[in-house]
Amino acid sequence: MKNTFGNSISLTIFGESHGEEIGAILDGLAPGIKLDREFIASQMDKRRAKGHISTGRTEDDEVIISSGVFNELTTGTPICFTIKNNNIKSRDYSDTRSLARPGHADYTANCKYHGYEDYRGGGHFSGRITAAIVAAGAVAIDVLKSKGIYIGTHIKRCAGVADRDFCDISREIASLEKMEFAVLDEAAAEKMKAAILEAANEGDSVGGILETAIVGLPSGVGEPWFDSFESVVSHILFSIPAVKGVQFGKGFDMADMRGSEANDAFYCDGDKINTKTNSNGGINGGITNGMPVVLSCAVKPTPSIYKTQDTVDFIKKENKQLEIKGRHDPAIVHRARVVVDSAVALAVCDMLALRYGTDWLKGN
Amino acid sequence: MKNTFGNSISLTIFGESHGEEIGAILDGLAPGIKLDREFIASQMDKRRAKGHISTGRTEDDEVIISSGVFNELTTGTPICFTIKNNNIKSRDYSDTRSLARPGHADYTANCKYHGYEDYRGGGHFSGRITAAIVAAGAVAIDVLKSKGIYIGTHIKRCAGVADRDFCDISREIASLEKMEFAVLDEAAAEKMKAAILEAANEGDSVGGILETAIVGLPSGVGEPWFDSFESVVSHILFSIPAVKGVQFGKGFDMADMRGSEANDAFYCDGDKINTKTNSNGGINGGITNGMPVVLSCAVKPTPSIYKTQDTVDFIKKENKQLEIKGRHDPAIVHRARVVVDSAVALAVCDMLALRYGTDWLKGN
Amino acid sequence: MKNTFGNSISLTIFGESHGEEIGAILDGLAPGIKLDREFIASQMDKRRAKGHISTGRTEDDEVIISSGVFNELTTGTPICFTIKNNNIKSRDYSDTRSLARPGHADYTANCKYHGYEDYRGGGHFSGRITAAIVAAGAVAIDVLKSKGIYIGTHIKRCAGVADRDFCDISREIASLEKMEFAVLDEAAAEKMKAAILEAANEGDSVGGILETAIVGLPSGVGEPWFDSFESVVSHILFSIPAVKGVQFGKGFDMADMRGSEANDAFYCDGDKINTKTNSNGGINGGITNGMPVVLSCAVKPTPSIYKTQDTVDFIKKENKQLEIKGRHDPAIVHRARVVVDSAVALAVCDMLALRYGTDWLKGN
Amino acid sequence: MKNTFGNSISLTIFGESHGEEIGAILDGLAPGIKLDREFIASQMDKRRAKGHISTGRTEDDEVIISSGVFNELTTGTPICFTIKNNNIKSRDYSDTRSLARPGHADYTANCKYHGYEDYRGGGHFSGRITAAIVAAGAVAIDVLKSKGIYIGTHIKRCAGVADRDFCDISREIASLEKMEFAVLDEAAAEKMKAAILEAANEGDSVGGILETAIVGLPSGVGEPWFDSFESVVSHILFSIPAVKGVQFGKGFDMADMRGSEANDAFYCDGDKINTKTNSNGGINGGITNGMPVVLSCAVKPTPSIYKTQDTVDFIKKENKQLEIKGRHDPAIVHRARVVVDSAVALAVCDMLALRYGTDWLKGN
Repeated sequence: MKNTFGNSISLTIFGESHGEEIGAILDGLAPGIKLDREFIASQMDKRRAKGHISTGRTEDDEVIISSGVFNELTTGTPICFTIKNNNIKSRDYSDTRSLARPGHADYTANCKYHGYEDYRGGGHFSGRITAAIVAAGAVAIDVLKSKGIYIGTHIKRCAGVADRDFCDISREIASLEKMEFAVLDEAAAEKMKAAILEAANEGDSVGGILETAIVGLPSGVGEPWFDSFESVVSHILFSIPAVKGVQFGKGFDMADMRGSEANDAFYCDGDKINTKTNSNGGINGGITNGMPVVLSCAVKPTPSIYKTQDTVDFIKKENKQLEIKGRHDPAIVHRARVVVDSAVALAVCDMLALRYGTDWLKGN
Repeated sequence: MKNTFGNSISLTIFGESHGEEIGAILDGLAPGIKLDREFIASQMDKRRAKGHISTGRTEDDEVIISSGVFNELTTGTPICFTIKNNNIKSRDYSDTRSLARPGHADYTANCKYHGYEDYRGGGHFSGRITAAIVAAGAVAIDVLKSKGIYIGTHIKRCAGVADRDFCDISREIASLEKMEFAVLDEAAAEKMKAAILEAANEGDSVGGILETAIVGLPSGVGEPWFDSFESVVSHILFSIPAVKGVQFGKGFDMADMRGSEANDAFYCDGDKINTKTNSNGGINGGITNGMPVVLSCAVKPTPSIYKTQDTVDFIKKENKQLEIKGRHDPAIVHRARVVVDSAVALAVCDMLALRYGTDWLKGN
Repeated sequence: MKNTFGNSISLTIFGESHGEEIGAILDGLAPGIKLDREFIASQMDKRRAKGHISTGRTEDDEVIISSGVFNELTTGTPICFTIKNNNIKSRDYSDTRSLARPGHADYTANCKYHGYEDYRGGGHFSGRITAAIVAAGAVAIDVLKSKGIYIGTHIKRCAGVADRDFCDISREIASLEKMEFAVLDEAAAEKMKAAILEAANEGDSVGGILETAIVGLPSGVGEPWFDSFESVVSHILFSIPAVKGVQFGKGFDMADMRGSEANDAFYCDGDKINTKTNSNGGINGGITNGMPVVLSCAVKPTPSIYKTQDTVDFIKKENKQLEIKGRHDPAIVHRARVVVDSAVALAVCDMLALRYGTDWLKGN
Repeated sequence: MKNTFGNSISLTIFGESHGEEIGAILDGLAPGIKLDREFIASQMDKRRAKGHISTGRTEDDEVIISSGVFNELTTGTPICFTIKNNNIKSRDYSDTRSLARPGHADYTANCKYHGYEDYRGGGHFSGRITAAIVAAGAVAIDVLKSKGIYIGTHIKRCAGVADRDFCDISREIASLEKMEFAVLDEAAAEKMKAAILEAANEGDSVGGILETAIVGLPSGVGEPWFDSFESVVSHILFSIPAVKGVQFGKGFDMADMRGSEANDAFYCDGDKINTKTNSNGGINGGITNGMPVVLSCAVKPTPSIYKTQDTVDFIKKENKQLEIKGRHDPAIVHRARVVVDSAVALAVCDMLALRYGTDWLKGN
């Protein structure tokens, strides 16, 4: 479905960048889950633009919950999250309305919606909508924690600068949660930020790779074929603007490996079965094997740059040049990271509810 | 759904490696489509194992169609494809039944199905099931052609050897269709085959990358959020065994690009709007822009190797060593390529039927 | 899905009777549809309680649309409708909280949600939520009109009083739309109202039958098996509170007919193929035949009555007696009629979009 | 989806009346369920035509299971059921091909499939396909029994003759299972059969009402809105050919009741909460309340009759007269009853798996 994801636990999103509000309906979550409004606010804060490495449009992003919660506990019925759009710079779009910003959805939106799309600030295609995913995702992340399942994402790569690999995942996930700019190696963070600012100063933007780990997942989650763990998670990840690649475990690096290298040998740790390596990212045959699930997303550089670009007026069918005004992010990996955590958490909750039933996530 | 993919045009698959037969139900295809049995057979042939670079298990893979076709034309009702399993080597699995083959789904199948899974030859997890996807996919590929939409996949990389890039896509797609070992550069093909044989001789296996192009797609296909073109296509691609990564356009390489480099500038070619580069792989904001769609899949090395491997007996919970017998592929990229084409075609047909209605694919 | 209906055009609903607001997300509607806010308001008005034959709780039911509409035209992206709950009588529910109102969902909600449900005024189970269906349904009804498809419902039976049958359907649908209390025979209306008041005076309630006709539907809509026209429409109708039966054409009366009587003979009216009778209600084999679709719903008497009733305290597991306070409807058929029109319109829009594509409903 | 029903446990059907075979894929059932082939055969037998009250086409209906079962236990992966069409009278349809049989789907099939449909014997619209539903449904009925859930259907009404009501449901379900012609009152059975024969002798056919009861269902199953228990069950029931009405509890009779009469008073039977009456058929607010679920279906008279009927040639657009040849049922209620049981069982299994998880149905 177009704006709905999930089967047992589902998320429906709505809204436009310059409309009155954006929001999401989260349906199917077990009843009796304590709402942690502080955690929701902290997740919104991590997504929020801050400093010179982000856009100048900052929203207070207060999350209003108007249904599905009673006495601060989920009821089991749909939870409606809304977030007002406050910091909108009203201006005249009429002269640039039909100039397709390269790398953006202006032109494809026009192909699909025939000119009726709300084009202001990217409309329904705006990264702004991810705020609603983060609000709902915060509840999903929180409920997974109560079942001993933890998700964390670090900026594996940004502007050509690499972070170190995961090593002690559970502890690192806990650290990442508190970070503004989520990296494992502080030195890498400084270099990344410098590289972002450098690009920003040149009116340009940078991309990166986000790597996510999930620990505590039971083995046996996912389906052999069309709803493989990878299929379901990639489905939601590829709906995040700017994500152009998704891989599990060593992913594309496995292409150059030999089987003897890529196969993760099993061993017994008492009664628990582990693998010595984790090239397959915790998934065999589409199903979790009890090892940490590791995946990564390629995030393309923000398409909004200040450099003059060649483009077209797609209504007049004329070649044009474009200088983008407004407030834009020179990088979004550091903000997108919490969107990835949220999307993964929602997909995982859905798969767990399908496998163990609607009440399983209720926790203790 | 577990073994069903698609909304308007859907595929349901069934069967096990060593069962009587495997098969698929393709539902929702427009009525009046001429069945090209020769093309179906030729697609089955491309997937079939041949020569020393593939497994010794060769099946004749005759496709039986028992419903949904009348006078060699589709009726619009479900088409049932079945393929018998003939070349099964019956042997005693009792001593290796609970030895988890590393990189395979034996252990995760056991976690999920509690020991009731048909473990013979990988059961329902076997790559054998992809034969059913290829049979149904052949019809999908054929019907897309009648609408001017062409799909082709080449082995972009195998065993560390790179093929050249797409350059004149439409013509190259036509050439690839006829090839046994689908590469753009014949010299690369020879090097790849040599590398596969080298690995085979060492009892090992290799992986690779498959790159797929789709030309002729209308612009405006896909949804902004959860059913983005990338989401839907990656969903089905990640259900193909051994696929561990999926990317669109430059994918992971975009992580290191700047916006000024990654943005594809638009220009007018008469009334048609094109982009000068195609880093985004023909998709902006989850929606096709009319340029060729380009995507690639990372295929891990075949997990069945002849080298001795460390593993566990997952029932006795004991460390063990395993020597895999039987007949296995030292590489599967060259066979998987037609599975990828088929999967992509099925996903594209579904998206087109959703957008333009159930009769649109009927052709002229 | 729990609170989402539809595949190509989908509706997601949320909210509770005594929460802050209720609402719906309507997704998948074609872009470029003119919003008729007056018509939406008039539909809300028909659902609104008025006079002595309805509850004393009257809401102004202003519909706020916060997304998916731009310059008063649909954009093609999700439309969010919200309606505030203003006229809530805050009172202490603590003494009756666990007394199951017979015929209501209090007890089953408790079984399902384990006590976490919002029990105030029926919570998420309240007929109040149908206001959101009516708001979204108004847009669906309106867009169908632009395609020459008209839907109308009359109170076929109420409190044992029968209305006359449809006879000149198209004209009658037009008349019904303007009515407050929708009957074909004015004299029957007066008798029904009198019977409702009589029941109300005795602290009791009455039920009825709603009969709906759809004219202008193309033939060929619906699927032979699981998504038969009847299946899809009954699915949404049975989600309307108090609906306990759905039938198409002569429905249950066909049980006593002979084939020679029940078969609708075809005849040619120029190039158009009609049937002489319409016992099958315009549907053969799950697919529309071009005749008016006729269906009816059994609406049980409102369960909230003022008479003392035997019940249980489902927490203490004790037999109890219950006297329901508050404001309740002695009949809901006259209000439910617009909910039925809305639900049918939403289901029909979805089926048409699946058959003819997402843009078909855009009109001229 | 067109020919697929269910979310966690799903059924996909295929085949045509005069094709090679018909069949079904049942996916999502828990692993480890013992297959009772004798019970499957006995269910097929109950559906099979026998004696003068049924068609002369008798099929041996051997059910072949080619996947998803290993050592006579379900594996948890898709189960493929096929049934050959053996007793096909090949004859020339060319002169009657475009004569629409009144009450049948010939004309609507043509509207939908534009002449490409397999028209022989009703093609994909034939009641023959229900044999596949019965095969899969037998497994569903059997697995529900292992969880203490029993389903039974009696012919409540046929040719104007009424059976008595359910009274001691659990025991009556057990008796019904063994019956060829399922009624509670033997005297009624004789009268019904006589009435069927009478109609048959006149070249005519009769309809009836099937009433179904489910005992042993947990309370709390179903969703408040779009996936209410009634919605899900009616969805599958309305896909059974000839079903034109579905009601729960007293259904249409509730239209004339007062609330004081229709409300089912609760009482405590020890710790168990029951209702004194069961007018609501075991469902409140779309959710089961632990009482027996009671529902009924209106089955229209078989449309194939031997009397001369007025119709059209829908290709030539001419009025015509039609005399149906071939072998047809003067009544199908007695055969349809096992189809209803099967359909209900499949819907119930799906709802239970969604609520309690995929392994719950595994039984002990």
